[in-house]
Amino acid sequence: MISSTPGSTTRPPDTDGARRVVVVGGVAGGMSAAARARRLDERASIVVLEQSDHVSFAGCGLPYQVSGEIPDRSALLLHDPASLRASLDLDVRTRHRAAAIDRVGQTVTVAADGGTYELAYDALLLAPGATTVLPPIEGLGHPAVHTLRTIADLYALTTRLAGLEAEIAAGRTTPTRAVVVGAGFIGLEAVEALVARGLTVDVVERADQVLPPLEPDLAPLLAGELRDHGVGLHLGISATAVVTQPAGADHAVVLELADGTALDADVVLVSVGVRPASDLAEAAGLALGERGTIRVDADQRTSDPHVWAVGDAAEVVHAVTGTTGPVPLAGPANRQGRRAADAMLGHPTTPQAPVLGTAIVRVFGLTAAVTGPNHTTLATAGVAHEQVRVHASHHAGWFPGAEPVHVTASFAPDGRLLGAQAVGRAGVDKRIDVLATALRAGFGADDLAELELAYAPPYGAAKDVVNMVGFVAQNVLDGTMPQWHAADLDEVGATSLVLDVRSHAEHAAGHLDGALNVPHTELRDRIDEVREAAAGRPVAVHCATGVRSYLATRVLLAAGLDARNLSGGWLTLITTPRAAREPEGAPA
Amino acid sequence: MISSTPGSTTRPPDTDGARRVVVVGGVAGGMSAAARARRLDERASIVVLEQSDHVSFAGCGLPYQVSGEIPDRSALLLHDPASLRASLDLDVRTRHRAAAIDRVGQTVTVAADGGTYELAYDALLLAPGATTVLPPIEGLGHPAVHTLRTIADLYALTTRLAGLEAEIAAGRTTPTRAVVVGAGFIGLEAVEALVARGLTVDVVERADQVLPPLEPDLAPLLAGELRDHGVGLHLGISATAVVTQPAGADHAVVLELADGTALDADVVLVSVGVRPASDLAEAAGLALGERGTIRVDADQRTSDPHVWAVGDAAEVVHAVTGTTGPVPLAGPANRQGRRAADAMLGHPTTPQAPVLGTAIVRVFGLTAAVTGPNHTTLATAGVAHEQVRVHASHHAGWFPGAEPVHVTASFAPDGRLLGAQAVGRAGVDKRIDVLATALRAGFGADDLAELELAYAPPYGAAKDVVNMVGFVAQNVLDGTMPQWHAADLDEVGATSLVLDVRSHAEHAAGHLDGALNVPHTELRDRIDEVREAAAGRPVAVHCATGVRSYLATRVLLAAGLDARNLSGGWLTLITTPRAAREPEGAPA
Repeated sequence: MISSTPGSTTRPPDTDGARRVVVVGGVAGGMSAAARARRLDERASIVVLEQSDHVSFAGCGLPYQVSGEIPDRSALLLHDPASLRASLDLDVRTRHRAAAIDRVGQTVTVAADGGTYELAYDALLLAPGATTVLPPIEGLGHPAVHTLRTIADLYALTTRLAGLEAEIAAGRTTPTRAVVVGAGFIGLEAVEALVARGLTVDVVERADQVLPPLEPDLAPLLAGELRDHGVGLHLGISATAVVTQPAGADHAVVLELADGTALDADVVLVSVGVRPASDLAEAAGLALGERGTIRVDADQRTSDPHVWAVGDAAEVVHAVTGTTGPVPLAGPANRQGRRAADAMLGHPTTPQAPVLGTAIVRVFGLTAAVTGPNHTTLATAGVAHEQVRVHASHHAGWFPGAEPVHVTASFAPDGRLLGAQAVGRAGVDKRIDVLATALRAGFGADDLAELELAYAPPYGAAKDVVNMVGFVAQNVLDGTMPQWHAADLDEVGATSLVLDVRSHAEHAAGHLDGALNVPHTELRDRIDEVREAAAGRPVAVHCATGVRSYLATRVLLAAGLDARNLSGGWLTLITTPRAAREPEGAPA
Repeated sequence: MISSTPGSTTRPPDTDGARRVVVVGGVAGGMSAAARARRLDERASIVVLEQSDHVSFAGCGLPYQVSGEIPDRSALLLHDPASLRASLDLDVRTRHRAAAIDRVGQTVTVAADGGTYELAYDALLLAPGATTVLPPIEGLGHPAVHTLRTIADLYALTTRLAGLEAEIAAGRTTPTRAVVVGAGFIGLEAVEALVARGLTVDVVERADQVLPPLEPDLAPLLAGELRDHGVGLHLGISATAVVTQPAGADHAVVLELADGTALDADVVLVSVGVRPASDLAEAAGLALGERGTIRVDADQRTSDPHVWAVGDAAEVVHAVTGTTGPVPLAGPANRQGRRAADAMLGHPTTPQAPVLGTAIVRVFGLTAAVTGPNHTTLATAGVAHEQVRVHASHHAGWFPGAEPVHVTASFAPDGRLLGAQAVGRAGVDKRIDVLATALRAGFGADDLAELELAYAPPYGAAKDVVNMVGFVAQNVLDGTMPQWHAADLDEVGATSLVLDVRSHAEHAAGHLDGALNVPHTELRDRIDEVREAAAGRPVAVHCATGVRSYLATRVLLAAGLDARNLSGGWLTLITTPRAAREPEGAPA
């Protein structure tokens, strides 16, 4: 339909009045837009320019092809130009790069193997994606160093891994070692994949914890799972150099860390993040937003009324905080593409809502998932909030196979849900999806308490994890259950009586120094003993998860004592980092 | 705290001003209320009257103890009077039955083994639950006939099963047979349990399908699963008599059906439903609601300001339709109990929202779940609606183990979600919980399309099943994709050209008589052929699931043809019941 072909330099004629849509970038958002555009307008000319060899590939599946969990190399290549032509009459041009935009003339300069040409558009969609950020580490040019964002990255990495496996098959006795730099979502998926592939893996993360977006009380659960699978963790430290080893050395390189640690590696995988690939947009003079994003309105339209942008490079507004920035996630990208197509073709749109940043990762047997801002983000944005923690079974506790779901959720003082995170071995994705839906709905603690979720013993509980989150938040926010936080243990331990209402056996297995142990079932009879020990101080109550200590807190409050319940109980306490100095109330 | 004891007949003194709370019924709603009451008021006198031997048992777990999946006989007995005294200072009295209420004097007459006594209350909570409905079948008094609602029912049934197993161990060669009367949620759980226990099972259901609340296009999926596990299905027919067999016969009884069918059985389990146990409330002159429920306000208060009611016996308002009736589900009962306690003790309440009736059942490898009203309920209530159907993978299709989730959802003409149902082998509970949350939020198709659910390949897809439901509903409601329904096949087949846009191979494997097969990738080149075949008639398009036929429908509409897409495609067509006469367009 487009008369221009590689080599031509003139603007194509527009003889039949069909709309000319040009899409830059043929993955996720770009391809969603192109497909939707065709469904809305059978006559439109739709050209998709993709600079790589592949369109419409499943980028999120790359780690699972590294591991072999997805064995078929073609499984991630969902479509090709021929199938897209046949199904959707799209003109998909791989290895064609949009080199410049003439916004006045409404043309794109395209660079291809055969030369450059101009392509006229009535509507231009930019879906350029993101580029991998490389940290300031010396020696990243070594062939042992890889990234994992494109099909080309995948092939390079798996080729190297196959080579190393061939060495093992040929008699190499040294175990193959990998270091992953960056313990974010993709980094952790890569760690899991490399372990599955049989490598010995270290991970280096500049932040003090794995998966930095995760609340500090939840991240150690992932760290434990990684260690249990033999992964070496190097947290709170940067890598500084990749040092080539001499021929005949056991490993190809050594990765040096800032503290002098030297990690042997045959593969170094760098995964410290991405940045919007907005160079083309910037060069065309389109307005940019925060952190190099392309600024768009709620219909994905840029500062130019004939140009739209979607995906990793497009700016979004974050829910709750109202801050702006990129959101490099596949789900939003796909929906943005659909919306942009609607807007480009004059179809009614669903304006983009502020994004929640819902995300999830599998780390061996654990799942971690988040929706909405975490404590740090809320605090940075100055959003007042209270956090509650629940450790509740993913289905009825008396039904075989019950696993705890560990939830940390943030609520506004008026009860509104602000964000939630969960970690566990089962049912985590379900709870985060429900909480993401609730967050989008503007639900509060009362709404969560009243949610009517599906209950039969294999699936949930009459009081689901999400209901429990609502109940606890109600109790905290209306003052029924004052609480204290494990992060404040130093201060609380110094000023309060710590009351452990677990059983004597649980107490004996591990407790805070100086804690008084009164099992909750004995509390009513021993209330005077507690009053005496408190000697006018507040009473900081805890049990294992916060349930029994809630009952105890109510008894103490009724007795006129100033009692608070430890949010999340002992289970949260043992995973919560505290100030570097050893507190008086440290676990004995 | 209560001074009255069995045998006393005087109203107890109220010397210390503590509130006197009496709870009738010690399971689910009643026990939730008692526990919450204690947490809110340490001084209150709280008496729980339970006519059976057990309080706080997990009624939903009964089928799983029949199967042996929960082997420990005590697992379902969550608490006993001693543990409730120790933990919550509750005065729990089993085998004490509330025989009458004196609302003027604010006393309950209690019948116990030692005689009757009066118990004064400031606040009375009725949580009497439900009683098993017995259908009009002759011979239900036979010892082979069981129900499954209480611990006593469980023990009777498992004792009989153990006896039958002993007969097998002693050399009995005839397989043990069971018939379950009623294929509702509990009936199906019982069927699964009895099969797991090794019995040969038939199920008799008066309705034309298993699980009558399920949409007629989804129920056959469950029926197939039951048949695949050897279960004999007798649908659309009633049982009429249990006929005792002579000593020495192969089986204890024969269950006769209305059409003369005779089913051998060693066990007959009747599970056709429950009715509110509102006799005590009715005798006390409390206002009753629909179908024998106790009428309550949004705080669970009955027509008497000192009496509250919760659980299976309490009236609820159904969401969407606004009709009233009972909702015999554990989740609502527990939350109602908590709310009633708040109301009784003057704590702020969360008023009960209209209930969605969210429910779920496992049937061997399949899960079926519902939230909100189905098509029949909506039609009966006169609520205008359009149904959409989606068959989408529970996680990325290219990730190993993807299973289809079959969703049928109803939307108002303005886009509002009205109800949804799903069946599948994985991920069904998650989608129904998200949809239940969306339904509670008043979300519409646009909101579902934009939901930001957690995506990584093991958990979902960039366009989740729920997003897809939203997309399809948007397309149907805004006219982008006119659709037709499999239930209308007779009429559509008689008036339209049926166009099968699946591949030639799919078409060859099974198709509608008279359908024209034009694979969707050939459609643009063969549009004239279709126009000629249509000869002015509408074109009824279909593919396997509705995706390719959506593309085809858009092409046909753009070509000026009157095209409609089959909702749910071939997968829905082959499970949708049609009029009894064989339609012209029946599957060939």
